[in-house]
Amino acid sequence: MSYTVQQSALHSSLLGEHEVLALFSEEQDIAAMRRFEAALASAQVPFGIVSQEAAHAIAASIISFRPDMEKLRQGVLRDGMVVPNLVEQLRGHIGATHSSSVHLGATSQDVIDTSLMLRAKRAFAIVEVQLAGILETLGHLELEFGSNRIMAHTRMQRALPVSVADRIGIWQSGVETNRKAVRALTFPVQLGGPVGDLRDYGEHGLALRAALAAELQLDLHEANWHAERSPILALANASCAVTGALGKLGMDVCLMAQNELGEVKLAGGGKSSAMHHKQNPVLAETLVAQARFNATLVSGLQHAMVHEQERSGTAWTLEWMLLPQMIVTAASATGRATELLASIVAIGEAAPQ
Amino acid sequence: MSYTVQQSALHSSLLGEHEVLALFSEEQDIAAMRRFEAALASAQVPFGIVSQEAAHAIAASIISFRPDMEKLRQGVLRDGMVVPNLVEQLRGHIGATHSSSVHLGATSQDVIDTSLMLRAKRAFAIVEVQLAGILETLGHLELEFGSNRIMAHTRMQRALPVSVADRIGIWQSGVETNRKAVRALTFPVQLGGPVGDLRDYGEHGLALRAALAAELQLDLHEANWHAERSPILALANASCAVTGALGKLGMDVCLMAQNELGEVKLAGGGKSSAMHHKQNPVLAETLVAQARFNATLVSGLQHAMVHEQERSGTAWTLEWMLLPQMIVTAASATGRATELLASIVAIGEAAPQ
Amino acid sequence: MSYTVQQSALHSSLLGEHEVLALFSEEQDIAAMRRFEAALASAQVPFGIVSQEAAHAIAASIISFRPDMEKLRQGVLRDGMVVPNLVEQLRGHIGATHSSSVHLGATSQDVIDTSLMLRAKRAFAIVEVQLAGILETLGHLELEFGSNRIMAHTRMQRALPVSVADRIGIWQSGVETNRKAVRALTFPVQLGGPVGDLRDYGEHGLALRAALAAELQLDLHEANWHAERSPILALANASCAVTGALGKLGMDVCLMAQNELGEVKLAGGGKSSAMHHKQNPVLAETLVAQARFNATLVSGLQHAMVHEQERSGTAWTLEWMLLPQMIVTAASATGRATELLASIVAIGEAAPQ
Amino acid sequence: MSYTVQQSALHSSLLGEHEVLALFSEEQDIAAMRRFEAALASAQVPFGIVSQEAAHAIAASIISFRPDMEKLRQGVLRDGMVVPNLVEQLRGHIGATHSSSVHLGATSQDVIDTSLMLRAKRAFAIVEVQLAGILETLGHLELEFGSNRIMAHTRMQRALPVSVADRIGIWQSGVETNRKAVRALTFPVQLGGPVGDLRDYGEHGLALRAALAAELQLDLHEANWHAERSPILALANASCAVTGALGKLGMDVCLMAQNELGEVKLAGGGKSSAMHHKQNPVLAETLVAQARFNATLVSGLQHAMVHEQERSGTAWTLEWMLLPQMIVTAASATGRATELLASIVAIGEAAPQ
Repeated sequence: MSYTVQQSALHSSLLGEHEVLALFSEEQDIAAMRRFEAALASAQVPFGIVSQEAAHAIAASIISFRPDMEKLRQGVLRDGMVVPNLVEQLRGHIGATHSSSVHLGATSQDVIDTSLMLRAKRAFAIVEVQLAGILETLGHLELEFGSNRIMAHTRMQRALPVSVADRIGIWQSGVETNRKAVRALTFPVQLGGPVGDLRDYGEHGLALRAALAAELQLDLHEANWHAERSPILALANASCAVTGALGKLGMDVCLMAQNELGEVKLAGGGKSSAMHHKQNPVLAETLVAQARFNATLVSGLQHAMVHEQERSGTAWTLEWMLLPQMIVTAASATGRATELLASIVAIGEAAPQ
Repeated sequence: MSYTVQQSALHSSLLGEHEVLALFSEEQDIAAMRRFEAALASAQVPFGIVSQEAAHAIAASIISFRPDMEKLRQGVLRDGMVVPNLVEQLRGHIGATHSSSVHLGATSQDVIDTSLMLRAKRAFAIVEVQLAGILETLGHLELEFGSNRIMAHTRMQRALPVSVADRIGIWQSGVETNRKAVRALTFPVQLGGPVGDLRDYGEHGLALRAALAAELQLDLHEANWHAERSPILALANASCAVTGALGKLGMDVCLMAQNELGEVKLAGGGKSSAMHHKQNPVLAETLVAQARFNATLVSGLQHAMVHEQERSGTAWTLEWMLLPQMIVTAASATGRATELLASIVAIGEAAPQ
Repeated sequence: MSYTVQQSALHSSLLGEHEVLALFSEEQDIAAMRRFEAALASAQVPFGIVSQEAAHAIAASIISFRPDMEKLRQGVLRDGMVVPNLVEQLRGHIGATHSSSVHLGATSQDVIDTSLMLRAKRAFAIVEVQLAGILETLGHLELEFGSNRIMAHTRMQRALPVSVADRIGIWQSGVETNRKAVRALTFPVQLGGPVGDLRDYGEHGLALRAALAAELQLDLHEANWHAERSPILALANASCAVTGALGKLGMDVCLMAQNELGEVKLAGGGKSSAMHHKQNPVLAETLVAQARFNATLVSGLQHAMVHEQERSGTAWTLEWMLLPQMIVTAASATGRATELLASIVAIGEAAPQ
Repeated sequence: MSYTVQQSALHSSLLGEHEVLALFSEEQDIAAMRRFEAALASAQVPFGIVSQEAAHAIAASIISFRPDMEKLRQGVLRDGMVVPNLVEQLRGHIGATHSSSVHLGATSQDVIDTSLMLRAKRAFAIVEVQLAGILETLGHLELEFGSNRIMAHTRMQRALPVSVADRIGIWQSGVETNRKAVRALTFPVQLGGPVGDLRDYGEHGLALRAALAAELQLDLHEANWHAERSPILALANASCAVTGALGKLGMDVCLMAQNELGEVKLAGGGKSSAMHHKQNPVLAETLVAQARFNATLVSGLQHAMVHEQERSGTAWTLEWMLLPQMIVTAASATGRATELLASIVAIGEAAPQ
């Protein structure tokens, strides 16, 4: 039981998902923050807030910028977040001429929230592709085994025989519903400035926010969301929707794979260190554990909606501790479900001719 | 501390909401179940499943039907739900001629889930009206006090002065966002029969479900949702969205009402049994408690997504224990927020001329 | 699905527990509050804080006191709690001569927290007796069926045959462990006065608190616990311990009762409204639902540990909304487990001779 | 917002705790597993289960053993845990003569659970030392500032003036109570064999378990706890107790540090990227976030009590995903609280002479 099993070298194949884990690395976090600062300067040019020359200098400088990680680390411990020191380093790197054009009018939260959204957008794009693949595989399984018979179980008791297509249909419905939820997500840019009112941009605030969103290919939320966190909650709920639907599938496979029911035949399966005859439905169990994991964590993000005044240090930190894990777990669940479905050799019994 | 303070005579004014509490009473639950059974018979007539005569007899009989509550109670203890005995009593009341046309092709879950949706639809209609009223009141407060000054606080520290309209704007954004979430809710009918495949209706299953939905003015979910519980989760998430947005408002008012900040002046306010000078911001505190209450309970409904096979006795029972409380709490929060906003005498300070 | 199924007339047999539900009624809450006020006056006599005459008058007056419930209700809505108006009414009832000796030096929280502890003590005494009965029944089942064979299952797969005594042993271990947790509970009196420092009792504060504890047969916590809520959390954790251990038993019985495993034979069992051959393991399912219910709610009480300053209105209200339900659910689970075990006709298979 | 901020290089100073994080690394997990296997062989010698020669060979071999991490990783993906492949590799390393004496009679869960307990024991020893330091510092603060005045606040409103010692006393009570909870923890060895009945050790099972506990300086639980997880829950609850008590302290400091209250003066404090006059109480906020984090996660471990049959793959995996994070967070909170208290320059105001 190592700390953060999702991220460990040994357990990340099972409980993490390489590509999405990488999105939530510090490297990519800081890369996205740099992208924010370059885009902000660039977006300000048409409004005359930053000169074209300064924006070019900032863009060029950000490319060559290599932050001193130890100073960043000390900054986090002092400031509770990475941005103040990152901006300070970046300004130093750019030099006195243009340093005041860096991060102009923005606040740490603009950088951190936008960096999250840039990466969440990519993460959920991966999730969506995997869900589409799962639906395709479910379609294949339905074609191959759909006409087989299986006993419907209600309250874990034998009810009446149905077709395997009926059972698969429940899974399809769950996956389809949550794929729609994922598709409906928006990934809004954050730009509000120190207290959320875009004060340093004069009359151009809203237009600049829209320009920045366009530059970063992000969405626009109807208002500044520094302290109104429904865009964050939407990501958490979508993560739960994915793991919930796949957890239901996993639970069904666990029950079907019981030797006494024998309703599904899986290739592979986990070994025991003590009982060599066993073949454990590890992937199906993992899906259930991941559903319960996200079902647990989402509560904290609901609590984080109680956000004090213009910005809450506590609720915001709590988001950082919970949300990336939930998204990674959702992505991992799509990976495990893909592997689980690929391992299905048979479902149900051929109907009597 | 009495049990279920939301429901108690003493505490329901504070933590419950009369009209919505009543919707989740047993009387209204059984009334909705009777409505389901009458509508089901009636909807079957055009398909020739039930005769017009039987449907009439059932409709008439249901009007005069007075269930034996003690038998229902014993039924719940034996069956884990009220429907089997309710249907048995109803059939007995209707008599041998038409008893087989009662509940024809349906299962307990069809009745229970539909009864929930009939009442949830009315509950959220009330919530939506109250949210609209809250938005209107916020608009009035903005008109009256919006140009006053208030100190923005980030991380609970004084940041920069803003207008009261800026602070109110955050609240408006939260309420508006969650009102949209409430409006987007669907309240689908449930009809699947014993194992969800509408088996007793032959080719007419889907058409009958649509007819039943129309009869009951409910929505259609794309599939049977006996075991795919996203419609339930949507109600829970919407309840949380409401309490989350209002909890943020409540927390802000608690902080603003601190004597040392004095940023809001409230009429009324709670007394202390020991300190007569005190005036506690009880309604604002209640909003925070209700947000945390729903943030806690929603986790259980996410767990309930892990639903076994064609019907889970455990996950379903867990829904019953959690969801009505969450909806009542959302409705109560809209009531408390309405009262809180009405009690505001002043916000912020007049800007210097 | 009626609101608060634990408390409804129909569902309380299944999900509530009559005697413990009654303890958390408003009647018994107010009765315990009256007992507190009488005991407080009486305990103050030896210290000369209240005269013997006043204490007698208060005791007599409390017996004849019938609060105006409508005024109490209005008080709750205004003050967020019942005590300020209750004390006001009580003082009015007692009359001017001794009214100042009522509630002398105490605060609302002293009354509310102590009332809770008086009733929680009785509730957990019931729980403990029921757990002892469950252990006794498990002992009988072990005697009767312990030498039968059953297949051990790990990760829901057949592992190796064991004796039924082995399986029962796991349940016994869980019940025994949590019975010890229940036995180790303390039920401390609360007495701190308005800001927790017993200021109005001079040098007698701590001695008076001890005398009050003795009078009420409650325990002494090492300090005032107005804002340090570990005694509350202990009750929540014990409630979870009970439902957790019984939920594990329930889950095992659900799995054993699957027709395909047939490892347990139960008398009775729930009927379906649509499938007359079915016999659902309702009591076992209920235990699982109750375990998940308490596992969900306990999180909110952990959040309530973050209690502001000398008294938090929000965290305290949250406790009221959650804790009684958890205790009732624990008591109910012991009732359901008792019934479930009594319904067991056979476990496992006779070992081959 | 990088994934698992507790563990990241940048954020671990704030949200992790170096020494305890290291305990939950894979290196130390596998090191503890190796220690288990060596101790198991050694403990079996007096019972004649394993020869002295084999135990020596195993001990020597384990020292030189360097597992192939890539094979372990593949094993986790297949088996859902690391042990089967680890044992296979270890047996290969030891060679045919003694390989059958490795892991003799044990199962994967024995290894994994014991490895956890070995490291949790060290982690909580660190926590306990830090709590003792916090109590000492609180004592110093009381000596220095205890006679100062501070306004008690109830329901976030000014109540009555008290001494700073009164406020510190609440914190002391919370820390003292949870230190006792940490001290009362037991760290039991796990030894049950494949289905928990110690079957391969004949009559020596219980004595061998005791010998193994002694060898590893762990405690004995009264029974095998493969499927009765109260020892795991105790660690989770203790983690919550620590963060809950420190979260209350953190919340108080956040409120006291509001500029308008100015009841505490802190050295250092976090900077803003946009507002240079600000000094954010980052450490205090962190304590609140950590309390809410653990309050959220503990719910999942309560769900994990519903453990199927002799071993649950799902509940067990869920434990891995949650528990180490909770323990690390508890340790981190003690670190942050230590730093926060050290940064206090003044509390309250000197009482008027």
